[in-house]
Amino acid sequence: MSRMNRILQVSAGDLDATVEAGVTHEQLNEHLRDSGLFFSVDPGANATIGGMAATRASGTSSVRYGTMRENVLSLTVVLPDGRVIRTARRARKSAAGYDLTRLFVGSEGTLGVIAEVTVRLFGVPAAISSAVCSFPSVEAAVNVVIKTIQAAVPVARIELADAVQMDAINKYSKLGLPVGPTLWLEFHGTEASVGEQAKMVQMIVYEHGGADFSWATKPEDRRKLWRARHDVVYADKALREGAQLWATDVCVPISRLAECIAETQKDLAASYLPAPIVGHAGDGNFHVSFVLDPNDSKEMAEAQRLNQRLVHRALSLDGTCTGEHGIGCGKLDFLIAEHGEAVSVMRAIKQAIDPNNIMNPGKILQV
Amino acid sequence: MSRMNRILQVSAGDLDATVEAGVTHEQLNEHLRDSGLFFSVDPGANATIGGMAATRASGTSSVRYGTMRENVLSLTVVLPDGRVIRTARRARKSAAGYDLTRLFVGSEGTLGVIAEVTVRLFGVPAAISSAVCSFPSVEAAVNVVIKTIQAAVPVARIELADAVQMDAINKYSKLGLPVGPTLWLEFHGTEASVGEQAKMVQMIVYEHGGADFSWATKPEDRRKLWRARHDVVYADKALREGAQLWATDVCVPISRLAECIAETQKDLAASYLPAPIVGHAGDGNFHVSFVLDPNDSKEMAEAQRLNQRLVHRALSLDGTCTGEHGIGCGKLDFLIAEHGEAVSVMRAIKQAIDPNNIMNPGKILQV
Repeated sequence: MSRMNRILQVSAGDLDATVEAGVTHEQLNEHLRDSGLFFSVDPGANATIGGMAATRASGTSSVRYGTMRENVLSLTVVLPDGRVIRTARRARKSAAGYDLTRLFVGSEGTLGVIAEVTVRLFGVPAAISSAVCSFPSVEAAVNVVIKTIQAAVPVARIELADAVQMDAINKYSKLGLPVGPTLWLEFHGTEASVGEQAKMVQMIVYEHGGADFSWATKPEDRRKLWRARHDVVYADKALREGAQLWATDVCVPISRLAECIAETQKDLAASYLPAPIVGHAGDGNFHVSFVLDPNDSKEMAEAQRLNQRLVHRALSLDGTCTGEHGIGCGKLDFLIAEHGEAVSVMRAIKQAIDPNNIMNPGKILQV
Repeated sequence: MSRMNRILQVSAGDLDATVEAGVTHEQLNEHLRDSGLFFSVDPGANATIGGMAATRASGTSSVRYGTMRENVLSLTVVLPDGRVIRTARRARKSAAGYDLTRLFVGSEGTLGVIAEVTVRLFGVPAAISSAVCSFPSVEAAVNVVIKTIQAAVPVARIELADAVQMDAINKYSKLGLPVGPTLWLEFHGTEASVGEQAKMVQMIVYEHGGADFSWATKPEDRRKLWRARHDVVYADKALREGAQLWATDVCVPISRLAECIAETQKDLAASYLPAPIVGHAGDGNFHVSFVLDPNDSKEMAEAQRLNQRLVHRALSLDGTCTGEHGIGCGKLDFLIAEHGEAVSVMRAIKQAIDPNNIMNPGKILQV
């Protein structure tokens, strides 16, 4: 869809924009630069908005602004038989019939081709402040996240990395950050509100044995502070020459996050594969990136073994087998483990809408 | 479902609760009273949470906290053939397969019976302030709403009533409120943040010719201030002895709200039926309540004529035929007018899941 890259309409008064599926989120935000508005969902890579809708993408700012599930207002979809539908109007809410928008968001191309997307926009906050701080344990860091959210602090980002990840970042980016569990935070609001939020969270951090915040408020300083977080893919790859990343993710209720990460770290420490952990802690979502040679069947088997243990651990904690990466063809069995009988409802929907199985066959469901 | 009224689990650490379908939102909030948490969706009447999920209910606080679409994490559903599914885990987000939760939310009982609902909870804000003020025109009031949302003020409620409605309220509640377009507002946050929000909105109000805020911060004063808004059903009924209300609602992009209400008011002023307007202005959603004798076919025909004009006006402004009341059997034709070909996708889903049409037949779709 990369040539369908036109921005069709920006409604500043309604805080929404309609784009063709091939428009990337960076392209949309560049277009919005002088409008005082922005599109919030940022999955890291410069993904297309159509692809982000198809995979129900999220990212670092979803704890405050929501995932694609909350940020898509309407879709134009080409059905398998060539008919074109629009799933909703631009109204902010509707009680008119089945929620087709949410059905196509996250359907990974298996029900139709998303051609246009109408997304929510937000006003650029008057003040933004970023901070980073380290902790004596993952549990301490995660408890700060839980307390922050319970205290209704409207934190805009709250990201976690473990010691293995911090070590990789230091080596790659030639930084001297403490090699321990680390949180990156970002606060959005008015000048006064950002100050108040930061003060509340700094107090929670102290209570859990965390270090002083390293602060950044100027845009270039914030970019520098976040670059370490955004560069994890490169930092992880650099851990072994010629290696590739084989990434997985799970998401659990936040009260189980510390436990889920701690058990996973034990598994990973006992393995010979390097596997840093980084996560969108505010959502209970984290990623494990196995640094391996994809042509080495022994290494792939080891990653799969660890991944299987990770997913079943997440499911046993009332979590999901994937928070944002999707099912694709790699997690078909985990979808069944997670949803059981409900998968038959998904299959019935797939067969009703795409009876000839011509839409991205083999993804999500084996029909 | 009213006897399925047990609260099954409250996870304070995860800010969620799981209840049987017959639990009402007041019952849940009573149960949560000393926990520092609350369930945000408040459609006015003391509805059951299962019913609210089935109708995708919203209400006065959805502008800040979302509708049932955003507040349901998971459902337990009995399918037409008796199988029981759970639509999702308690994780805050998931990319695992089709979004069955959102498919059943708003399906009005036509796809299965909702037996249990897991909902999001929020922390009770440290400070709450309410205000009411009147405006020279609906346009001025609506422009205040638009500017407030564009300025990213996280207003918790922002409700609109027109002059006809204010007159009915004054008569019923023996109040002396100005008989003009009126906004009720509520601010949630820390003490400092509530003060700052209120100051920002008061400035916007002045710019649009609005009056000074009447303030209420103590719980009993806030209840009094909001009672006038919550009593509109009784106030409207009292306009004509023995009359009933025949209510309709639409929702439009907020930039078209003033225009949609102004045109509707012209229609209503030219009719002999009393019909006050009240709305969840922050969502672009408003209600018209025709005060009539349901056994008088002439009055019913007049309400239907006005309703048809209202819905087509909303659709022509890229709005929806119902923001929160649902399709039921009264808006079947409007669903087709709004969604066109997409209704055939809804029908295919209905037939796939409920082939014998035993689930609430005749609602949403004529199968």
